[in-house]
Amino acid sequence: VTVEEQDAVERLSVEDLRDAWILFSPDDRRLAFGQLPRSEAEDFFLSLPARDQEELVLGLPREERRSWVRLLPPDDAADLVQAAPPEERAGLLALLDETTRREVTALLAYAEDEAGGLMNPRFARVRPDATVDEAISYLRRQARERAAEAIYYAYVLDDEQRLLGVTSFRDLFAAPPDRRVRDVMRTDVVSVSDDMDQEEVSRVFAESDLPAIPVVDRQGRMKGIVTVDDIVDVVAEEATEDIHKFGGVEALGAPYLDLSFAEMVRKRAGWLAALFLGEMLTATAMAFFEDEIARAVVLAVFLPLIISSGGNSGSQASTLVIRAMALGEVRLRDWWRVAGREVATGIALGCILATIGFVRIIVWQQIGHVYGEHYFRVALTVSLSLVGVVTFGTIAGSMLPFVLRRLGLDPASASAPFVATLVDVTGLVIYFVMASVILSGALL
Amino acid sequence: VTVEEQDAVERLSVEDLRDAWILFSPDDRRLAFGQLPRSEAEDFFLSLPARDQEELVLGLPREERRSWVRLLPPDDAADLVQAAPPEERAGLLALLDETTRREVTALLAYAEDEAGGLMNPRFARVRPDATVDEAISYLRRQARERAAEAIYYAYVLDDEQRLLGVTSFRDLFAAPPDRRVRDVMRTDVVSVSDDMDQEEVSRVFAESDLPAIPVVDRQGRMKGIVTVDDIVDVVAEEATEDIHKFGGVEALGAPYLDLSFAEMVRKRAGWLAALFLGEMLTATAMAFFEDEIARAVVLAVFLPLIISSGGNSGSQASTLVIRAMALGEVRLRDWWRVAGREVATGIALGCILATIGFVRIIVWQQIGHVYGEHYFRVALTVSLSLVGVVTFGTIAGSMLPFVLRRLGLDPASASAPFVATLVDVTGLVIYFVMASVILSGALL
Repeated sequence: VTVEEQDAVERLSVEDLRDAWILFSPDDRRLAFGQLPRSEAEDFFLSLPARDQEELVLGLPREERRSWVRLLPPDDAADLVQAAPPEERAGLLALLDETTRREVTALLAYAEDEAGGLMNPRFARVRPDATVDEAISYLRRQARERAAEAIYYAYVLDDEQRLLGVTSFRDLFAAPPDRRVRDVMRTDVVSVSDDMDQEEVSRVFAESDLPAIPVVDRQGRMKGIVTVDDIVDVVAEEATEDIHKFGGVEALGAPYLDLSFAEMVRKRAGWLAALFLGEMLTATAMAFFEDEIARAVVLAVFLPLIISSGGNSGSQASTLVIRAMALGEVRLRDWWRVAGREVATGIALGCILATIGFVRIIVWQQIGHVYGEHYFRVALTVSLSLVGVVTFGTIAGSMLPFVLRRLGLDPASASAPFVATLVDVTGLVIYFVMASVILSGALL
Repeated sequence: VTVEEQDAVERLSVEDLRDAWILFSPDDRRLAFGQLPRSEAEDFFLSLPARDQEELVLGLPREERRSWVRLLPPDDAADLVQAAPPEERAGLLALLDETTRREVTALLAYAEDEAGGLMNPRFARVRPDATVDEAISYLRRQARERAAEAIYYAYVLDDEQRLLGVTSFRDLFAAPPDRRVRDVMRTDVVSVSDDMDQEEVSRVFAESDLPAIPVVDRQGRMKGIVTVDDIVDVVAEEATEDIHKFGGVEALGAPYLDLSFAEMVRKRAGWLAALFLGEMLTATAMAFFEDEIARAVVLAVFLPLIISSGGNSGSQASTLVIRAMALGEVRLRDWWRVAGREVATGIALGCILATIGFVRIIVWQQIGHVYGEHYFRVALTVSLSLVGVVTFGTIAGSMLPFVLRRLGLDPASASAPFVATLVDVTGLVIYFVMASVILSGALL
């Protein structure tokens, strides 16, 4: 870094830094971050994703690391430790105070994408026999002593830490001060199990509209809470994963500009090569129809148009089904309802394209006489093939996600390119078979 | 409905009803809903999306509607009114109490997808000169009197309703009871303006990790709060919209199984027909190369393979860029950084596919002698075309979202089918030009 650059970096405000962050190298980041006033730096640090927090902390001299790591609540500290290389993890854990270290170690036992990996082990708890007034002053004390996270609800636990009920500050404030908590609490508590997948957890949040949900283990003991602000990240993350898969890329797992060139090529080459190998079947199929093409070159002219229409209709259908599945609108057992709709939709869409195609060929022929004396049969071949190809594409695109889910795979892998490849081979077979029937005796 | 069916419907529990809901007709829904015990029905009603609440309420006799509409907090009531047909809206508004009606009418002035349309006009407010103890007991009273929504923060407003600061229950509990609120409050408040787009609002939530954010108008007057649970819906909704667009479908705007057949065909036929018209350019281009195909039919054999590789690499690139834009990782001014990366990535990917293609043709030739005496030149044509087509596809796919955004359009419209169509024509031109150079004197 030259002196001039260093000057430029020094003068950055928090807003500028946030804007420029993704463009900065780790050294620039550390430099700019080091120039912020302490309290601004702390807020900025807390707003960063775990991966960036880890990069910053490990870039600091050992003796400066502790105060940054201790800023974090246990769930965020666990994410930071998880983001660090294995050889650094013990060192980072050692920076935490005794209690937090125990909590973080417990959290690290969970997979990142299950409820246990999302939860915060700190929550407000009250005994069922406390009075409302006792509960309020106990919560006041907890709020004063405990770190960071907002407190929405107080959870009522028995001596074995089993979850009996829940009460909100609102309920407590509204209740007569001398009532017992057990008479005020709600017992129909929405909870999730600690091994529930995060996508499922986000659906529970969507249905219940709660700001926080307790996490319990198989014995009914409460282990922590998941708050809705973590779920916003989960929803965005899961959508990104689905969108990447759907575009035929392995999920990047990192911001686009952060990924190295080699990593980027690796993530894309795999699927692209697999699709290429699948698409080679078209060359095999085409070789089979070489004679037909030699006799009627006009057939080759419409080939890209026909197979791409199959691919397009297939990718529409798979998009709709994949997203409906991800949102829980369509389940595995709804496959026959979807199939019924899609067959009808496919035929309708095929007829629309067939009409456009037919008119196009007839009009062009009137203008330029480009398709020879058998132009009417050619138009008929193209139109009927379109009905067949679009219907097949629609069915294949809509059913593939069900097949993948049935096999225990992710339906989002039924990507646009995957469906297109699947449909291309069938599309050209439909086209040439149709041609050999309609054009036999004329061109073939 | 037969008696038997009615019996089956009657016995449904809330869980069963939730499962079966999307499969039910409006009549079935009303019937099953009517059989639930009142308090379960209320919880279930509150958890439904506005569209379904509206359907249920309008299905009830006029005299039964009021108690259901009055269950809703003002922001949800506004959504329900918005979901109703225009001629019913005044009637629904008339069911509300005076205060709520005024609030709901104010909310209806905002577009659904801006901060004002998301916000709840009810929030806890305190005066700057109140003591901490006064503030706590005032908030206790507000909590008792006011409806539903959880209270996270108390907002400190001056006499003109301008936002001065914010304080949390936690801060109040932790502060000495006789301090003034103005000495305890935080003044660096994160807020959003009432006309900010909901996608932008969700990014503010992601950066700030707050459970609620105040909404202010241009004069700095506070109008309401947006809570993070509304943002979960926004994030999912925006992702669905992007995914649908990306698959080449108009955003459905309703669950898949709820849409009528005619509506479904309409939403899909538009884009499909537009793509079909674009793809017709391939037929025009192919007609131009008919002579080459007639002389070297082997060229047609590899055509689908080559153009689909361009489409696949293009859809990978556009997926990555569209999603990175939606997440704010890549901005318009980053286009040259992205272009640089994608040119290099495209060449690398093209070389990988070219190698696979080359080996495939040579090996097949050794086994079956299928590609004639000039097989080596054919292999060279295919390989070099692949490098060109994949590189072009990657550049086109990554730059199209920037062009669309620059034109003020949604980058997510750079769908996989759109990119594929764009790349197909260029792909076949590249292929035939390459062929005419390499095969001239041999096959051509």
